[in-house]
Amino acid sequence: MSLILKNVILNQKLCDIKIEKCRFAEIAPTIFPNAGDEVVDAGRKAIFPGFYNLHTHAAMSLLKGLGDDKELFSWLSQDIWPREAKFNADIIYIGTKLAMLEMAKSGTVFFSDMYFEQAAIMKAVAEMGLRAAVSIVGFDMFEAQQTAQKIDAIKAFLDLENPNPDLIQKVLAVHSVYTVSARLIEYTAQTAHDNNMMLHIHASETKKEVEDCKKEHGCSPISYLESLGALGPRTVLAHAVWLDDADIDIIVKNKVKLVTNPSSNFKLASGMFQLDKLRKANCVIGLGTDGSASNNSLSMFDEMKLCSLSAKIQASDPTAAKAEDIFAIATLNGAEIMGIDAGIIEVGKLADCMLVNLDNPQMFPDYNPISNLVYAADSSIVDTLICNGKIIMQNHQLPNEAEVWAQAKAALKHIN
Amino acid sequence: MSLILKNVILNQKLCDIKIEKCRFAEIAPTIFPNAGDEVVDAGRKAIFPGFYNLHTHAAMSLLKGLGDDKELFSWLSQDIWPREAKFNADIIYIGTKLAMLEMAKSGTVFFSDMYFEQAAIMKAVAEMGLRAAVSIVGFDMFEAQQTAQKIDAIKAFLDLENPNPDLIQKVLAVHSVYTVSARLIEYTAQTAHDNNMMLHIHASETKKEVEDCKKEHGCSPISYLESLGALGPRTVLAHAVWLDDADIDIIVKNKVKLVTNPSSNFKLASGMFQLDKLRKANCVIGLGTDGSASNNSLSMFDEMKLCSLSAKIQASDPTAAKAEDIFAIATLNGAEIMGIDAGIIEVGKLADCMLVNLDNPQMFPDYNPISNLVYAADSSIVDTLICNGKIIMQNHQLPNEAEVWAQAKAALKHIN
Repeated sequence: MSLILKNVILNQKLCDIKIEKCRFAEIAPTIFPNAGDEVVDAGRKAIFPGFYNLHTHAAMSLLKGLGDDKELFSWLSQDIWPREAKFNADIIYIGTKLAMLEMAKSGTVFFSDMYFEQAAIMKAVAEMGLRAAVSIVGFDMFEAQQTAQKIDAIKAFLDLENPNPDLIQKVLAVHSVYTVSARLIEYTAQTAHDNNMMLHIHASETKKEVEDCKKEHGCSPISYLESLGALGPRTVLAHAVWLDDADIDIIVKNKVKLVTNPSSNFKLASGMFQLDKLRKANCVIGLGTDGSASNNSLSMFDEMKLCSLSAKIQASDPTAAKAEDIFAIATLNGAEIMGIDAGIIEVGKLADCMLVNLDNPQMFPDYNPISNLVYAADSSIVDTLICNGKIIMQNHQLPNEAEVWAQAKAALKHIN
Repeated sequence: MSLILKNVILNQKLCDIKIEKCRFAEIAPTIFPNAGDEVVDAGRKAIFPGFYNLHTHAAMSLLKGLGDDKELFSWLSQDIWPREAKFNADIIYIGTKLAMLEMAKSGTVFFSDMYFEQAAIMKAVAEMGLRAAVSIVGFDMFEAQQTAQKIDAIKAFLDLENPNPDLIQKVLAVHSVYTVSARLIEYTAQTAHDNNMMLHIHASETKKEVEDCKKEHGCSPISYLESLGALGPRTVLAHAVWLDDADIDIIVKNKVKLVTNPSSNFKLASGMFQLDKLRKANCVIGLGTDGSASNNSLSMFDEMKLCSLSAKIQASDPTAAKAEDIFAIATLNGAEIMGIDAGIIEVGKLADCMLVNLDNPQMFPDYNPISNLVYAADSSIVDTLICNGKIIMQNHQLPNEAEVWAQAKAALKHIN
């Protein structure tokens, strides 16, 4: 049984698309369905790949709008930590679902998460039908007892059942060089290497982090992570704002991947990612929204636009960070970094895509639809979302929205 | 006859709101309609003021996505000017309507326009029912014949019939110090002064503009405009990116108003508006999207977010440009600058407002709805738009959308 999308606009041309066994199976002017095929008339909506959000903390959706516009420490200590202390597996399950509601409605098919309670998160992801990388986060505040506990937790995570390996990838994470001991970084890196898992790390987000690391270890966070064996082709560094030329050489040499989170970096006044310079140095770059507490949107539309605009202003060059390149960063690059055979509408690729209303002033005129997506569009244009060949959303509505709302409202009462 | 909005959330409390003779007449827990009143059940949607977009070129909606990511001159000469040469009053009428469709759908009730064919623009505005400031643009490229023609055109504009003075304000404009002669700037400024009209000017947008002005006139564009009598409390300077301390003193002394257009300034790599510094110097600031060719969105949601984020990164201070202040800049400040007695939901004020769906992940949790509007929301949350007491849009749909689409598609064929 296949899914046939009739009357789709692909690259500004009308066609039909057949999806079979999770992949695009045929793209042709007309495809005739067989008995049992599901047929969806796209009604001249345009098809684009879905977005791959390479760095977020999904369950922080329940903390959005708390203590904005504050200094980092008072924000964390007065607003975030007291409520996170009330988080449990149920709350995190619900917060993750709420985040996925926002992500699906804005065209996102995949997110790379860094949070607690992996079993609850995997359950939420499997139920919503999106893709995710779910990580266990190394975080020990340099206390030997916490290090030992976290090592046990990583071992247990390796054995934890994955409810849908087609959608969910288990990965390991290190919170940062300023919160995790060398022992735990080394252990996590070695375990990731031994198990062919990806390793997700916050690195060089702020100037202070870099300065403190130099004082403490005599080198930059990038150099320090390299010395601990944490850098390789499966390492993804989030933020990576404060990189010098030596850092960039290390990143390129080790084929490390980078994820930029421009809204978060701007909102926390951390600094500007050097997109243009890093692309010219052949770094491989993905895009992420960061969590709802520091962005506060999970929309990759917002993030693409700021990613481009930030690069242009930083390079003082309006030709930097062209729309097509930024769209690739948010789609194909993201999928490739995460080892997902998707991110482009081509026969053979996994069917992760969205259908977009073109009768919307954001998408008209159609001189350059990709420019419209990057600079002019927002979540209101996304009608249908398909992930791994299955329809997740139609008419901008998910089937389980009412249930997610009821759960989210109950969870909010619990933490406040 | 009044319009009664039942079950509205105002400042997180449920109430009814009566609108009478274009103004908010009553806000109370329950209002009983009289015979003949129009009653709209808001169904627990939240009410907020609409947005005041203080600088745009509406009809450039038909040029969106053309030649992005190019150098300024090749963009203008290859992409923009050849098509603008095909613009006529009909095309501009349609382009202005298309822009208003995008603006209405993203919560905007007013725009300050700078373009050609004022009669066509005023007709479009009156038909759509939004508010606008419609300007005639001083632009003579220092050629005496053009100066004389433009002076005649300004005189004719003063006599041009205004089809709806409640909604439309005629204003004068000067394109810039690098495109307009001193003679025409002086004439326009004097005419604005004599007729109590506002004066809208692009000023100090790029570093090159400032440097060239210093070479040519021995002073900054701000100082030069002051010397020509063009600065006063009814002058609105768009962009104003490259201001030094002397410029700021002149602006404050003359009570000049500023409009920031962050997306355009980033996209063209012009520079960053000094929001935090200018607010501390007590400058009065509004927000604008600029035209679709240089942003490319007309959504004030995008613009509010970048306005805040840009100010935070520029000041290296996450506490700069708080959500509440940015929201005021986009609403109340904008209305006040333009002399419109609106921008806030209060009895006695003109009824310019939007109703917003709260059952949307962008607006949930509701710890701080204004933070959600500034940092997390996009046009998808706007259900209803009311301008000057009249309902312009419900269910995110305008009554004349189909007609605008048909006209816009026809216009596009004409210019391509």
